[in-house]
Amino acid sequence: MVIVGAGFGGLFAARFLRHAPVEVTLVDRTNHHLFQPLLYQVATGILSAGQIAPPTRDVLKSQKNTTVELAEVTGIDVAARQVAVVRPDGRPLTLPYDSLIVGAGAGQSYFGHDEFAEFAPGMKTLDDALAQRERIFGAFEMAELEEDADRRQAWLTFVVVGGGPTGVEISGQIAELSRRALTDNFRRFDPAAEVKVLLFEGGKEILATFGDRLSEKGTKALQKTGVEVHTGSIVAGVDADGVDVKGPDGTVTRYPAKTKIWAAGVSASPLAKILADGSGAECDRAGRIKVKPDCSLAGHPEVFAVGDMMNLNDLPGVAEVAMQTGIHAARTIRRRLNGEEPQPFKYRDLGSMAAVSRRRAIVSFHGVRVSGFLGWLMWLFVHLAFMTGFKNRFKTLISWSLSFLGRGRTERALTRHVG
Amino acid sequence: MVIVGAGFGGLFAARFLRHAPVEVTLVDRTNHHLFQPLLYQVATGILSAGQIAPPTRDVLKSQKNTTVELAEVTGIDVAARQVAVVRPDGRPLTLPYDSLIVGAGAGQSYFGHDEFAEFAPGMKTLDDALAQRERIFGAFEMAELEEDADRRQAWLTFVVVGGGPTGVEISGQIAELSRRALTDNFRRFDPAAEVKVLLFEGGKEILATFGDRLSEKGTKALQKTGVEVHTGSIVAGVDADGVDVKGPDGTVTRYPAKTKIWAAGVSASPLAKILADGSGAECDRAGRIKVKPDCSLAGHPEVFAVGDMMNLNDLPGVAEVAMQTGIHAARTIRRRLNGEEPQPFKYRDLGSMAAVSRRRAIVSFHGVRVSGFLGWLMWLFVHLAFMTGFKNRFKTLISWSLSFLGRGRTERALTRHVG
Repeated sequence: MVIVGAGFGGLFAARFLRHAPVEVTLVDRTNHHLFQPLLYQVATGILSAGQIAPPTRDVLKSQKNTTVELAEVTGIDVAARQVAVVRPDGRPLTLPYDSLIVGAGAGQSYFGHDEFAEFAPGMKTLDDALAQRERIFGAFEMAELEEDADRRQAWLTFVVVGGGPTGVEISGQIAELSRRALTDNFRRFDPAAEVKVLLFEGGKEILATFGDRLSEKGTKALQKTGVEVHTGSIVAGVDADGVDVKGPDGTVTRYPAKTKIWAAGVSASPLAKILADGSGAECDRAGRIKVKPDCSLAGHPEVFAVGDMMNLNDLPGVAEVAMQTGIHAARTIRRRLNGEEPQPFKYRDLGSMAAVSRRRAIVSFHGVRVSGFLGWLMWLFVHLAFMTGFKNRFKTLISWSLSFLGRGRTERALTRHVG
Repeated sequence: MVIVGAGFGGLFAARFLRHAPVEVTLVDRTNHHLFQPLLYQVATGILSAGQIAPPTRDVLKSQKNTTVELAEVTGIDVAARQVAVVRPDGRPLTLPYDSLIVGAGAGQSYFGHDEFAEFAPGMKTLDDALAQRERIFGAFEMAELEEDADRRQAWLTFVVVGGGPTGVEISGQIAELSRRALTDNFRRFDPAAEVKVLLFEGGKEILATFGDRLSEKGTKALQKTGVEVHTGSIVAGVDADGVDVKGPDGTVTRYPAKTKIWAAGVSASPLAKILADGSGAECDRAGRIKVKPDCSLAGHPEVFAVGDMMNLNDLPGVAEVAMQTGIHAARTIRRRLNGEEPQPFKYRDLGSMAAVSRRRAIVSFHGVRVSGFLGWLMWLFVHLAFMTGFKNRFKTLISWSLSFLGRGRTERALTRHVG
């Protein structure tokens, strides 16, 4: 059988099948399993790339029935039951399958404004996060060079678009950075006094999925950290020097800002449409393929779509859904091998959480809503628990101790040219 | 005053002047102080970039008399006493000085064969080390794709040119990697059995500066780790698919190898020649500027050249010389401010060391020669001691514990395209 994607969906499916009587080929275009929820910590210099991206081969090394194939999927022929891939050396290859699990994730969506991408990149891959790191720390370097006060302020203004967990976490960390980690680093400006972090959210509140009470607590914590929160604000234009934002009253305001980060929307992997076209299934507005209750495709009980790229009861695009649907698809395959009937997927909601600032997080879990330091400890525990590999857990705990108890960001070396 | 370069020479000069009644401008084209002796550990996935490259601004943040300028030096006019730089935004700037310390280091030298550089890059900057990391781990990925046995063997053959400490350390670590860290990671080959690491040294022994006895011990330890040591072997040709090596008997042998690393020679920064042309001083064959006994230039007691780019009594190009000459130049400037005469530089030889393999190093110190585990403990202690910043020391110790007591390499995420 073939699994496409080494994210939470694909990796957990592969691990579930470690003792099953199947030959598994796991295909991914990168060599690593990426812990996406912590990408923002790579972007803000807390964690190194390797800490959130263990090599897939290494994670699965003792699983003898599994081969990891580094290749990019270019097509899936559900009628002929084969996956077309291109390897890094350019050679095409066809992987036949009896069962297929596709967990190819989602990319950034600009809601029809793809021209924003150049100036407000998103953060979905390790490369994205490393590029954001260069942009964020590079902006401080550029500010230090700038004699003109207005132009310097534009370098010291950071715009984050989107008030979901990712937008909240990255804006909180940029504020923490300027208020604490970069103290005394510059001679021509004071980061704590001059940096502005602006968070724009189109809806009426940030962290809307957490409910009003936590949303309000999150907003207050974020403001205390130094983030200006603008709700009911649609980003209508983005260029090299700033953003144009349509406020709740309909007027458009210009905010000069050199660094913009897009965290406002996702769009499913193009493989969702390829699967839909091949099987006659439908895609929703976010490009996610609609699946049957057991995560398989209509008319193709041997093909499963899992995680961010599929739509089942409008479940959210979070790691927890990807893991559970990946495991469910794998379990269904094993049941079929045993001659058992498939069962519908049931989501066990383990709650959601967002780390708003240093030592403060909000957590929503079965109606229990926790915020502040206790929430942060829960956030810490859960993220360590779902991290892959003892060594990465241990090193991450050390990095967090140094960054959150102390002040430092150790991953600040710029490698590309600034500017 | 101006200091050019944030390496061991420049940084230690700046720190020495922290209480001196001078305004210091430290210019570097990168944002970090690089711990060059550990670059090979970044290349082989043991350490992250940030662990050996703390931001220069952060190191000097509490030193109020010092400004760090991110810029590339394009010229030095010793007659007019000014340094010409270009900032990352492209704007030129002129920095006048009363005193100047230049510690711009050295790059790789190919002894007139610059065409080798494309296929056998060196390892002098953080970018170099990260690119080597992609090449080394990428080669294993390419081997896993290759069905042809000969072509696979070429991907699994690593050539290191140059038997000095850097060449020995990187070849030892690649061998460790294949023998221990990558066990069970691949399905189409066994790294421990099939990887070849070839070290070519033109002279009659590797680690020649350590003396015959340690050189022999180092050779044996390296061979035990799995490195083939070829002495008296001149690399006469390098291309995409391998190297041509002229052996001690004069015959040329072809070694197919996809990954080649150059660690064979250094050439001083072009600033050495610019200083020489301006002051009438001479450069030696390696491009190093000859300086007076106090490290200043003849006729220009206000200009000092320190570290790898200068030649004083043919001192070796090691971190220890750079630190001590940097401090000496800074001390001479302070003495002059106090109306005291300059003194000649005296090198305190703290010995030299090379980590041959996991838990084995050779150390030469005032005629005392140590090898094996005790040598490795000394290596460990000295490297931690000279590392900048408590946090980097602490994290590095953790990484070493995990990599040298355990088996892991946590920094293996490939970000660019493999191949």
